[in-house]
Amino acid sequence: MDIFGYTIDVGEILEAVIPVIGQIILLLILYAIIVPIGKKLIERALNKASSRQKTSPGRMKTLEKLLVNLFSYVMIFILIVMLLTTLGIEIGPIIAGAGVVGLAIAFGAQGLVSDIVTGFFVLLERQIEVDDYITTAGYDGIVEEIGLRTTKIRSFDGTLNYVPNRYIEGVANHSRGNMRALVDIGISYNMDIDQAIKVLENICAEFQLDERFKDGPNAIGVQSLGSSDVVLRVVGQTENGLQWECERDMKKRIKEIFDQQNIEIPYPHQVILQK
Amino acid sequence: MDIFGYTIDVGEILEAVIPVIGQIILLLILYAIIVPIGKKLIERALNKASSRQKTSPGRMKTLEKLLVNLFSYVMIFILIVMLLTTLGIEIGPIIAGAGVVGLAIAFGAQGLVSDIVTGFFVLLERQIEVDDYITTAGYDGIVEEIGLRTTKIRSFDGTLNYVPNRYIEGVANHSRGNMRALVDIGISYNMDIDQAIKVLENICAEFQLDERFKDGPNAIGVQSLGSSDVVLRVVGQTENGLQWECERDMKKRIKEIFDQQNIEIPYPHQVILQK
Amino acid sequence: MDIFGYTIDVGEILEAVIPVIGQIILLLILYAIIVPIGKKLIERALNKASSRQKTSPGRMKTLEKLLVNLFSYVMIFILIVMLLTTLGIEIGPIIAGAGVVGLAIAFGAQGLVSDIVTGFFVLLERQIEVDDYITTAGYDGIVEEIGLRTTKIRSFDGTLNYVPNRYIEGVANHSRGNMRALVDIGISYNMDIDQAIKVLENICAEFQLDERFKDGPNAIGVQSLGSSDVVLRVVGQTENGLQWECERDMKKRIKEIFDQQNIEIPYPHQVILQK
Amino acid sequence: MDIFGYTIDVGEILEAVIPVIGQIILLLILYAIIVPIGKKLIERALNKASSRQKTSPGRMKTLEKLLVNLFSYVMIFILIVMLLTTLGIEIGPIIAGAGVVGLAIAFGAQGLVSDIVTGFFVLLERQIEVDDYITTAGYDGIVEEIGLRTTKIRSFDGTLNYVPNRYIEGVANHSRGNMRALVDIGISYNMDIDQAIKVLENICAEFQLDERFKDGPNAIGVQSLGSSDVVLRVVGQTENGLQWECERDMKKRIKEIFDQQNIEIPYPHQVILQK
Amino acid sequence: MDIFGYTIDVGEILEAVIPVIGQIILLLILYAIIVPIGKKLIERALNKASSRQKTSPGRMKTLEKLLVNLFSYVMIFILIVMLLTTLGIEIGPIIAGAGVVGLAIAFGAQGLVSDIVTGFFVLLERQIEVDDYITTAGYDGIVEEIGLRTTKIRSFDGTLNYVPNRYIEGVANHSRGNMRALVDIGISYNMDIDQAIKVLENICAEFQLDERFKDGPNAIGVQSLGSSDVVLRVVGQTENGLQWECERDMKKRIKEIFDQQNIEIPYPHQVILQK
Amino acid sequence: MDIFGYTIDVGEILEAVIPVIGQIILLLILYAIIVPIGKKLIERALNKASSRQKTSPGRMKTLEKLLVNLFSYVMIFILIVMLLTTLGIEIGPIIAGAGVVGLAIAFGAQGLVSDIVTGFFVLLERQIEVDDYITTAGYDGIVEEIGLRTTKIRSFDGTLNYVPNRYIEGVANHSRGNMRALVDIGISYNMDIDQAIKVLENICAEFQLDERFKDGPNAIGVQSLGSSDVVLRVVGQTENGLQWECERDMKKRIKEIFDQQNIEIPYPHQVILQK
Amino acid sequence: MDIFGYTIDVGEILEAVIPVIGQIILLLILYAIIVPIGKKLIERALNKASSRQKTSPGRMKTLEKLLVNLFSYVMIFILIVMLLTTLGIEIGPIIAGAGVVGLAIAFGAQGLVSDIVTGFFVLLERQIEVDDYITTAGYDGIVEEIGLRTTKIRSFDGTLNYVPNRYIEGVANHSRGNMRALVDIGISYNMDIDQAIKVLENICAEFQLDERFKDGPNAIGVQSLGSSDVVLRVVGQTENGLQWECERDMKKRIKEIFDQQNIEIPYPHQVILQK
Repeated sequence: MDIFGYTIDVGEILEAVIPVIGQIILLLILYAIIVPIGKKLIERALNKASSRQKTSPGRMKTLEKLLVNLFSYVMIFILIVMLLTTLGIEIGPIIAGAGVVGLAIAFGAQGLVSDIVTGFFVLLERQIEVDDYITTAGYDGIVEEIGLRTTKIRSFDGTLNYVPNRYIEGVANHSRGNMRALVDIGISYNMDIDQAIKVLENICAEFQLDERFKDGPNAIGVQSLGSSDVVLRVVGQTENGLQWECERDMKKRIKEIFDQQNIEIPYPHQVILQK
Repeated sequence: MDIFGYTIDVGEILEAVIPVIGQIILLLILYAIIVPIGKKLIERALNKASSRQKTSPGRMKTLEKLLVNLFSYVMIFILIVMLLTTLGIEIGPIIAGAGVVGLAIAFGAQGLVSDIVTGFFVLLERQIEVDDYITTAGYDGIVEEIGLRTTKIRSFDGTLNYVPNRYIEGVANHSRGNMRALVDIGISYNMDIDQAIKVLENICAEFQLDERFKDGPNAIGVQSLGSSDVVLRVVGQTENGLQWECERDMKKRIKEIFDQQNIEIPYPHQVILQK
Repeated sequence: MDIFGYTIDVGEILEAVIPVIGQIILLLILYAIIVPIGKKLIERALNKASSRQKTSPGRMKTLEKLLVNLFSYVMIFILIVMLLTTLGIEIGPIIAGAGVVGLAIAFGAQGLVSDIVTGFFVLLERQIEVDDYITTAGYDGIVEEIGLRTTKIRSFDGTLNYVPNRYIEGVANHSRGNMRALVDIGISYNMDIDQAIKVLENICAEFQLDERFKDGPNAIGVQSLGSSDVVLRVVGQTENGLQWECERDMKKRIKEIFDQQNIEIPYPHQVILQK
Repeated sequence: MDIFGYTIDVGEILEAVIPVIGQIILLLILYAIIVPIGKKLIERALNKASSRQKTSPGRMKTLEKLLVNLFSYVMIFILIVMLLTTLGIEIGPIIAGAGVVGLAIAFGAQGLVSDIVTGFFVLLERQIEVDDYITTAGYDGIVEEIGLRTTKIRSFDGTLNYVPNRYIEGVANHSRGNMRALVDIGISYNMDIDQAIKVLENICAEFQLDERFKDGPNAIGVQSLGSSDVVLRVVGQTENGLQWECERDMKKRIKEIFDQQNIEIPYPHQVILQK
Repeated sequence: MDIFGYTIDVGEILEAVIPVIGQIILLLILYAIIVPIGKKLIERALNKASSRQKTSPGRMKTLEKLLVNLFSYVMIFILIVMLLTTLGIEIGPIIAGAGVVGLAIAFGAQGLVSDIVTGFFVLLERQIEVDDYITTAGYDGIVEEIGLRTTKIRSFDGTLNYVPNRYIEGVANHSRGNMRALVDIGISYNMDIDQAIKVLENICAEFQLDERFKDGPNAIGVQSLGSSDVVLRVVGQTENGLQWECERDMKKRIKEIFDQQNIEIPYPHQVILQK
Repeated sequence: MDIFGYTIDVGEILEAVIPVIGQIILLLILYAIIVPIGKKLIERALNKASSRQKTSPGRMKTLEKLLVNLFSYVMIFILIVMLLTTLGIEIGPIIAGAGVVGLAIAFGAQGLVSDIVTGFFVLLERQIEVDDYITTAGYDGIVEEIGLRTTKIRSFDGTLNYVPNRYIEGVANHSRGNMRALVDIGISYNMDIDQAIKVLENICAEFQLDERFKDGPNAIGVQSLGSSDVVLRVVGQTENGLQWECERDMKKRIKEIFDQQNIEIPYPHQVILQK
Repeated sequence: MDIFGYTIDVGEILEAVIPVIGQIILLLILYAIIVPIGKKLIERALNKASSRQKTSPGRMKTLEKLLVNLFSYVMIFILIVMLLTTLGIEIGPIIAGAGVVGLAIAFGAQGLVSDIVTGFFVLLERQIEVDDYITTAGYDGIVEEIGLRTTKIRSFDGTLNYVPNRYIEGVANHSRGNMRALVDIGISYNMDIDQAIKVLENICAEFQLDERFKDGPNAIGVQSLGSSDVVLRVVGQTENGLQWECERDMKKRIKEIFDQQNIEIPYPHQVILQK
């Protein structure tokens, strides 16, 4: 074929084009094989993890969707890069250019990746559930929502706290199992310790019948010899969330019985030497 | 054609030029196809996110504009790089050179990228709205303006605080839902606790009729056995923003009723032993 | 032409030289086109930003000069790199070498870049103006000068503080709008609260006529039930900068009126039990 | 063979294909040799480490499984990369592209790698075991579970704490060996120190018979001359976990004996000069 | 020419050598042109900066020497790299090798670069001068020497502090302009405030004649209503460095006059209720 | 030779193969020479360091083994890489791929390298020995084991602390040389200082005969004029580990002698003005 | 020459070998020239620095040895790399491989480089000398040894502290020049200030004759009006290391003279209002 007196040799073109087409087809076949296999593997891995940890199905779906999306994006990115390379469009420079931009963004956005990585594991390991009472990152309250990027915590005073997951450096979850109720009570140095402990044990006996208590309470003895009082300690285990109520009830009861039994809860003492 | 006795073979030149022109056209077509599709995708993604989260249309437009601009700049950058490469102008060295400068800038300006990434999510997730009362990054006040880079917070004392978004490590938003009003009141160790609680419950009953209270208030019992007083606690839930007013009113009322009922709010006590 | 029996073929040389010259001319033309367009774009962008934010023309010029200079340096750098490449002088190694040095400098000098980036936005967003009273980076005082790298703050005690802009992690600007005057005043537990509040309201009424007050002051009620006193709070809004003066005047006035009305401002109280 | 008039020379193709096939076979053989050897080496290394440190077989299996998996993934990754390269599919760009993504992820996910590295050594070095009482990363309690990523600690008050392993900057393990019981007791400045120490030594003699004490307790002398009392110290070593109980019993006993012997535990003293 | 039966063709060698020589000459010419121009530019830039900021000529010389040295080293480095490249000695690997070492050093020595960059700007911007009294980096004293790497500060107690410049995160320079003298004085709650202020104003009038005071002093009113006293504040501006002396003199004078006028400076008060 | 009609030219193959074989032999020879020399050099360097610092032979062996192992691994790694390259198997991509993984691991595992580097120097410089009493990284106790990664410290209360070496930012070793015993003793303002110092000197004279004291103790004078007492200081130097015992004995002795001599150790004083 | 029927053409081989040999010789000559010149330059630079700063010759030798060693290692490294390259052994991959390892080590060992860089400047700038009393990195004591990596400081209580040089963020050297002795003494509010100052001036006059004082001491006036006393300040300058002794002597003398002159050093005062 002659164009502007320039001969185009179809044979030569074919010679150049055929291997390219072969490579493209190979790539597409590989893509078509790898993608569904990858998705299956993700599903299975999550199902295994899920069955081992008994996570709710809703939570499982969120994680699965996240991972499948991520996998798809990565595969499509690789496919496009390889197709362009095969077509002879140099993408090296683009990637290099994107590398600079990517570096800037990597520096700036590493927090975002951190948020998602941490969020993923908080969800997967069931560290917190909605309605748990937790302390984390300096915030303290009831969990309202757990997201991949942000967790919402409602404080006792009503404030709603938004905590980016990367700042969750450790979670203290107060809603996992029985809680301890603890009362420290100071008695006068003049009192007989044995008698006071006996009185406390009687009070404890009353509360041991209380259904809210799972274990105890018991008077465990002299906690410290304070500057003005001998401090006795009472501890027990209550159902989760009832520990403050139980402590309040025990404080009230101890005060009442001590008043009856004339056991003094002393004010601060000071010895005065006059000159 | 002969120039200075140098023969220029048009055919050869064409042979060299034609594939270049072909590639350029291919690039331009690809660009013309990809850009509008990309913009559409951004719009749709934001619309979806918006409809799910009910963000105001003004906020949506800001985010859309930001993303579309960003996308356009990136696409133009890629187009220019590829055109230059096709024309045989080596841009590798420029990119490499820019890489050094880019590194310096990436280090120095990562804060800026962080600001924008954080700002974007603060806007998208509606963590704060103008006129919310929030605590973040050590500042505490009413939000006056939320920008992609900086958030303006007006403190209670009138100071206007400019907070770069990257320092927002967590937001405590005090304008989301009812707030708790809490009063701790100390009574004398000589008083009958039951009677005091009954008086408090009467006061609470009054306030329960108050429209500002959404729940309670209630006297919940003995909070602690202090060094000079028995501390009783009253808590309730009020409409957002009225909690301080309610606390002030309750404190005043409790003081008045306690005076009437001769319930002592004790001064600090000390026992003196003279030698 | 024969040199040392070595034949130089002018044609061949031309063949090699002509495309080089073509590329150089192309580069110079591109440069001549891009540079003035870039400068215009910077001017326009700044003018827009300026008109939106009403920044002073002096400030605008500083920013414009900075950006135009920066742009020129980058363009000249790119031009030189490309010319050298076209001339066949390999600059890859230089760039690579500079890369190592550049890395060291990038690490060490990132603070400088940070200073300028932060300084740029502090200027552009008008976060602070000369003569504003601000608190930032642990320093607190009147702004004397805002530079791209350093901000000078004159403390109340006369010290001149030089703050590199990168340490400005947030600015509390006390010169933006009205300020709050706040007086907490403790009265005796024996006093009638209603009467004391009435007295305070009379004093507030006096000050409400004072031009320095933009809003209030008002007596808002019982702030807390302290260990020895009932604390009442008075708040109002004053013109910027007059809040301390107003507070001083109100404290003096309250003390005088309370003396007249026999309302006791109590010393700390303690109950003594002697043994 | 002629296709579209394009001659395919089988010989030439073979010439190109044969070395490729040779390389592939070589790679597969190398892979088949290296992988089982590597696994064996890992097993042996762990067995050695295990026999030296007497770790439980369950723990050993966890570590072995982790390392063998890791090794397999790395080897498969290398195999695929090399096969693709041999087949002429350029993977440079993919890797470069993945490099950018990899960088972003490396920044964001370095915490995860840190978690696993730290977790690995915590397990391998037996720093903590389930049911140990430890203090780490600001949390303090009984270990409930040690994972590669997270360690669960049950606090004394019932809270369950999730600590990502990277925040374990040092472990204070309170369940390794005997613990010290320590009682500081203040006596009056008017008392004879020698007599008080003799009394304390008698009490110590009683407790030395107690099986819970592994060493002592002994009265070791005057710890300090306090502002109101002379402080004497008693120390002993008890079985792990019984130290608090022993301290409580000793405090009670000392208080009782001191009451019998009229040794005063003084209240704070103050000298008053009246004017 | 025949060597060992190996024919050396001078023409071919020349063909290879001539362009190399041409490039070398070009490089040397470029070097000879660029270096002096660069030095001139540095001198001029510094002269401009200097004339604008009135820095002492000695300081200017230090900075000029530093910059010219730096420039020369960089230019020589570039020249050598380019000459070697032209001679066909591959320096890529050296640079790459140096890159690894350079990275290690860049990480370790970034502090040194930071020191010099900060030191450069501290000198250029005249933030501190020898004999200034400054507070920076937790040290506080008189500047003895300002170096590019280290600043020496003599503390009040005689200690000589060496501060690497990078730790200078902000300089509080107490030797720039007048300083404030401030005296807070508490008077009894029983005193008449107006009378006390009048007395203070008389004392201020005396000191206003004192040459050390540049402004004031003035009695500005009731600073606070303390727990045992009404605090009045006196402020004035003194010559730099005399503020402490002035405060001492004012305190002495106020104490004497208050004694004369029977204005009580009260001890802490406490109300005692005996039971 | 003809295969499938494809002619294999032995000569050509040899031509390709011979230089490869030559290079492989060269590499193996180089390896065989460099490795034993390197090992010798390590041994010698350690022997020198050891003879200079008198470290125990056991410790030397640990370090030697570590370094020789490290050296061997690095040399084998280099050998394999070079052999593969010579054989024409491209390892560039593997290395690049490993680079991404390596980066992730480098970020995550840098702590491990830090541990080993610090541990190496702690061992080499003999900063701590087993049974030393040290304070480091917030832990304080007796060293039980020094490892390359972790150091075990037994606290006074019996806790066993595991400290990763990287957190050892400085070691306070309390088991290196004599320790100081220091007693501060307050006497009444009414006492004659000279007399009290004389009494203290007599007590010191007694203790100077004590073998536990290496220097002193001596009464060095008035340490401070406290709010209620004049504080005198006694210091001496004791054998390592006996300082607390000596201080206890001195406190007891001083109290006894002061009682004999009627030197008052005063309680806190306060002057009371009654209104 | 014929081997296995394969003709080796000596001429061709020479053609390939000769330029290589030429390059090797060139490299060796360059090495032989550059190394001694470099060493000379280091010596001279250090001699200059030394003569300017009068550092001891022993210290100079340590630094010289360090720098010459460093220089030699770098030069040998470069020589080997270049020889291998010239011989056609590709070292790119090794370097790349070492790059990954190097990165990991660079991250982990940057502390070591930091130690040496800081140590180098601490030595060069004579910031500390053996036997200086310094405060740095939270440690405080006498310098026992200054190393390139670690500095040993002996605390007052006898502890030997090992401080890695990188933690030396600033050195407070208490052994450079005269030190200040400072005594604050409180007198009763009832005392005549002028008389008390006169008495203090008499005491100061005595001490001014003392050889230990280089300047003063002088009574500089009323430092503060305390809650119970008027605080007067005496300051002077003493020989280095004698400041504590001088302060002790002055405190003792002031106490004695004040007793003679009936100047009261008051106890804390409190006014009591009884109800």
